[in-house]
Amino acid sequence: MSEKLVSPAILSGFMELLPQEQIVFDRMKETIENGFRRYGFWPLDTPAIEKSEVLFSKGGGETTKQIYRIDKGASSTEQALRFDLTVPMARYVALHESELPFPFRRYQIAKVYRGERSQKGRYREFYQCDIDIVGREQLAVENDAEMPSVIYHIFQELGIGAVSFHINNRRLLNGFFATLGISDSESVLRAVDKLTKIGEEAVSGLLREEGLSEETVGALFDFLKPLESNAATLTMLDRVGAALDERATSPGTVAAYREGLNELRLVYERMQAFGVPEERICIDLSITRGLDYYTGTVFETFLCGYESIGSICSGGRYDNLASNFTKTHLPGVGLSIGLTRLYYQLQQAGLISSEKGEYIRALVLPMSGEDLAYAIETANFLRAAGVCAQIYLEGGKAKKKLAYADRVGARYAVLIGEQERAEQRVALKDLTNAAQWSITREELLERLCGGR
Amino acid sequence: MSEKLVSPAILSGFMELLPQEQIVFDRMKETIENGFRRYGFWPLDTPAIEKSEVLFSKGGGETTKQIYRIDKGASSTEQALRFDLTVPMARYVALHESELPFPFRRYQIAKVYRGERSQKGRYREFYQCDIDIVGREQLAVENDAEMPSVIYHIFQELGIGAVSFHINNRRLLNGFFATLGISDSESVLRAVDKLTKIGEEAVSGLLREEGLSEETVGALFDFLKPLESNAATLTMLDRVGAALDERATSPGTVAAYREGLNELRLVYERMQAFGVPEERICIDLSITRGLDYYTGTVFETFLCGYESIGSICSGGRYDNLASNFTKTHLPGVGLSIGLTRLYYQLQQAGLISSEKGEYIRALVLPMSGEDLAYAIETANFLRAAGVCAQIYLEGGKAKKKLAYADRVGARYAVLIGEQERAEQRVALKDLTNAAQWSITREELLERLCGGR
Repeated sequence: MSEKLVSPAILSGFMELLPQEQIVFDRMKETIENGFRRYGFWPLDTPAIEKSEVLFSKGGGETTKQIYRIDKGASSTEQALRFDLTVPMARYVALHESELPFPFRRYQIAKVYRGERSQKGRYREFYQCDIDIVGREQLAVENDAEMPSVIYHIFQELGIGAVSFHINNRRLLNGFFATLGISDSESVLRAVDKLTKIGEEAVSGLLREEGLSEETVGALFDFLKPLESNAATLTMLDRVGAALDERATSPGTVAAYREGLNELRLVYERMQAFGVPEERICIDLSITRGLDYYTGTVFETFLCGYESIGSICSGGRYDNLASNFTKTHLPGVGLSIGLTRLYYQLQQAGLISSEKGEYIRALVLPMSGEDLAYAIETANFLRAAGVCAQIYLEGGKAKKKLAYADRVGARYAVLIGEQERAEQRVALKDLTNAAQWSITREELLERLCGGR
Repeated sequence: MSEKLVSPAILSGFMELLPQEQIVFDRMKETIENGFRRYGFWPLDTPAIEKSEVLFSKGGGETTKQIYRIDKGASSTEQALRFDLTVPMARYVALHESELPFPFRRYQIAKVYRGERSQKGRYREFYQCDIDIVGREQLAVENDAEMPSVIYHIFQELGIGAVSFHINNRRLLNGFFATLGISDSESVLRAVDKLTKIGEEAVSGLLREEGLSEETVGALFDFLKPLESNAATLTMLDRVGAALDERATSPGTVAAYREGLNELRLVYERMQAFGVPEERICIDLSITRGLDYYTGTVFETFLCGYESIGSICSGGRYDNLASNFTKTHLPGVGLSIGLTRLYYQLQQAGLISSEKGEYIRALVLPMSGEDLAYAIETANFLRAAGVCAQIYLEGGKAKKKLAYADRVGARYAVLIGEQERAEQRVALKDLTNAAQWSITREELLERLCGGR
């Protein structure tokens, strides 16, 4: 037995919680999942390992550097851990196309893997909570408005404070860029996406590097400048549209702008119909989701008062995500919550605490071996009624047993000694205030099921 | 857009389900999880990737060949995907020892990875559903009896038919083997473990190869032979014990046998106290869990009438699982359900069907764009009351919309047209029998919440 001990450490960049914390984490995850279900999204569970050719079918760019590749050994197929749930979803829809109803609505809550440089609040393994709606050939814009409303109601239930949705439309932006003579709108989108992070001056520098004139950059910033209300922004956008018509730039360009604006207005209005209050919506022309595959609606979600955390849920509309897997045109709209990071941020901000979490409702404590049979019966009785009940089966003094009850954070201790057994009663002790009652098992059940 | 298409295939040996099947799978997983919770096991979530030195700290044997290693790239740490949840649990308990209450009860339901040779019903990625109770320095044998009772009640709720627990005790077996002069009890345990699979003759051959005499093998088979009842087996075991006393073989050996027998009897009796009927328990001396790290109680679980499926839940007592990570003595008892394989087997046996699963309670169908606002209001109203409601936002004819309702297996369609909107009512259609009513939204809620 004098073997050398192995350090029981985990790899850096991975989150592992203590049980009390895990309960809080799991309750958040459950609230999200129940919300997804209530809105009629179907569960999906795809393999964590996929063929590399599937994962990188879109190229992948930055992400390929972060990938966890599987040492394939004798296998001839390159394999890797998924880095998001979107590519597997596109692959799934293409694979099972003939067996799915369209629009197809699915949620998936699962871990994804990115070998990012280790830093505070960034994890290499983390939960994503995704919903997507995928249409065949077409998908109504109203779906774009429903997505953030799902999140609005879920975040209300999570009880972590008010959130604000910043919405925009890429078609509108691209249309406007084109009227400014910007040809590579991708790189401009990416630069604009950094506005809140690095500021106007730095973004201006980036745009000048891209070959934009000072005048064009000025016109762009004018356009992106936040106004005092959504109504003012929409009025401004209408005015810009009218000016474009007059200047009679290429008709296709103006059409794209108009189409994007109509979508943006519709999403803004329908979000309210879906129950998101107007004051929780901000039409924000600087939101672009620069690195993503979105083509129309884009949005980010901020926790009011904690905007520095960054977006806690982002999403948008994509025209044709599965184009690498199938010739069928599959437009969709989706969003993702990065739960592991969100949990970390909320904990750092003091918005969640593991103290509140009652888990064990009743800890049944037989005082001696003779009390065991009656104690087990009592635990059976509680569990059959759905009460979370643990029975303590070890020997030792009453004091040690009650200390254990405190240690596991049980709400009640159900003490069973000679007297209780003789009288077919139990001694119920409220561990929050040490009050104690001698009651029957039926009374016990009533007490434990009420006031939870 | 004429890129070459990538086949949307998954790797062989991985399970991926259609939504209706996934719902059935998830309900099983939920039933298991709720059962674990009700018995006071705490949730745990460990990283899927661990240091190789942690995963293989016990050697690993056969398993090391099946491991999914991570191509570590620039990292200097060997990493791999977990092949079970037991090693990570031992590592977790050793790492967080000072922060946990003992006995520490945890459950974990998560995917594990084994690169097994591909064959029907064997998966390379599969869910394990584990519970364990770990004590510090000691842990009462009564815990061993509680474990199968958790499973008994969970399988009752799963409604897949009666199960039978085959229990045994390794200490008893080792004690008996020693009295036969068998020194390498590990290899004998492993051979005996194969009895039901390969039969007495083949096992006899294996044992003779291990150097056992024909006489010893005969005595062994005599001992292992199933008797007509648990009472008869216990009587036989007592008689063998008395004979050992008389023959006065080494006292230590007899003591181990006695201790094992006492544990086995206690577990048998306490299982009944925990609610497992006597006829669902079989003391089966041929159960050894040969390849595992168990030291006392061992058990397997069979689905009555489908014994050929093999054990659907196995477990047992281990003396010191974390001995590679800590000097603290941490005895425990645990069990595991291989859910992915179980689901596959139950489906093959026709014991579960994805037909039953209602998921979408109500599909709200606006007949035209003008009905949309009122339809969204109606969906909001249902969801706020907790009803799983989907709204269909696409255009098209009523027939197409109702076909979609069938396609997603919705229980009810809530039709909203000009008349419903004008009267502030809805047309509720029961999709199982095509009955239809015109009712108010309050009546709708009543109808949808009742009789689920």
